[in-house]
Amino acid sequence: MMVRMSEAIPARRGRTPSADVERELLAAAEAVLVREGPAGLTVRAVAAEAGIAPMGVYNRLGGKDGLVEALLIKGFDRLRVSLEEAFAAAGEPAMRGRFISCGLAYRRFALANPHFYAIMFEDAILHEHDSQEVHDHAAACFGALVRAVEMSAAAGVIAAPDPLEVAQQIWSAVHGAVALELKGLVLTPDPEYTYQAFIATLIRGLAPR
Amino acid sequence: MMVRMSEAIPARRGRTPSADVERELLAAAEAVLVREGPAGLTVRAVAAEAGIAPMGVYNRLGGKDGLVEALLIKGFDRLRVSLEEAFAAAGEPAMRGRFISCGLAYRRFALANPHFYAIMFEDAILHEHDSQEVHDHAAACFGALVRAVEMSAAAGVIAAPDPLEVAQQIWSAVHGAVALELKGLVLTPDPEYTYQAFIATLIRGLAPR
Repeated sequence: MMVRMSEAIPARRGRTPSADVERELLAAAEAVLVREGPAGLTVRAVAAEAGIAPMGVYNRLGGKDGLVEALLIKGFDRLRVSLEEAFAAAGEPAMRGRFISCGLAYRRFALANPHFYAIMFEDAILHEHDSQEVHDHAAACFGALVRAVEMSAAAGVIAAPDPLEVAQQIWSAVHGAVALELKGLVLTPDPEYTYQAFIATLIRGLAPR
Repeated sequence: MMVRMSEAIPARRGRTPSADVERELLAAAEAVLVREGPAGLTVRAVAAEAGIAPMGVYNRLGGKDGLVEALLIKGFDRLRVSLEEAFAAAGEPAMRGRFISCGLAYRRFALANPHFYAIMFEDAILHEHDSQEVHDHAAACFGALVRAVEMSAAAGVIAAPDPLEVAQQIWSAVHGAVALELKGLVLTPDPEYTYQAFIATLIRGLAPR
């Protein structure tokens, strides 16, 4: 909002530090993504939302590709923090409960951020050549899951001789459940119940033998 | 090819029975889908592939929507048959083996028919108002999974007090694994190994207690 006003009355505005402008641009990009969906995410729409000229988006973020990359990083960081916070939850001293709460957090993130989920994991926007920075943030997000697997295995909740293999299985499970739910393809009466039962199935399947 | 030639030299062709023409049109539609992907599936492209005028596609199939519906029905039927054949496999007398072979068949179908999979389960083409016929074929496909669950439960391989709930969990699992693999998001060295291990995890998780 402040950017919008200051653009409208350029003589009045003071210099805005560059990081602030980028933060506001990114907030505008998220607002457009949430409101219009991935198909509506354009340089023009984000510039209008932020109240600056489209050239400003090109200069600051490198156009559409830069916009998408910045949003992907934001999405991966938000999911990573969600998983880490759920896994660290103080209310669940038992490791089994922390593991479950981490699984539930994945679904909560996806349902609360469906458009982020769509660009992160559903190819809603083509981004074949992600930058190293995007890869690093995506890897950090998967790393949070691998750490949860390692700690759960150390506590005897699951067996994970190869934590990467187990983390991939868990990701397949939660992604599948969430992807079907976001597409309206859960055919049971209560998707939340079915998801919880699925997490329980998964833990039983991964339990030490 | 015969349609193409007969269109080029209309005086020579005899009358082709309507069902044959529709079968050839559908074969042309599949060829376009496989070669060009969902984005390339247009009335014009299918008409060119079949060697008829675009109006012929509208008349026979009802345009783009009809094309997509016909392909969806073909895809659901093909997946249903794959699952049923795998589950009935004579080489696997034990129910546990039949259940596993059914799980492996799902991945095989998806990897062999990625563009079908994309229009069936990935919203690669918007089809919000599917006809009753499409719904019926999709339901028959899911029904094949439910029957496999019921028979596996009857044989004591898994517990399924509510077969629909268990079928949905299994679908979430295999869809998630396959969707990530199709998007290049399996981070383990051998996706086939990881998938097989995942099916084993699932069976353990669903085992009678």
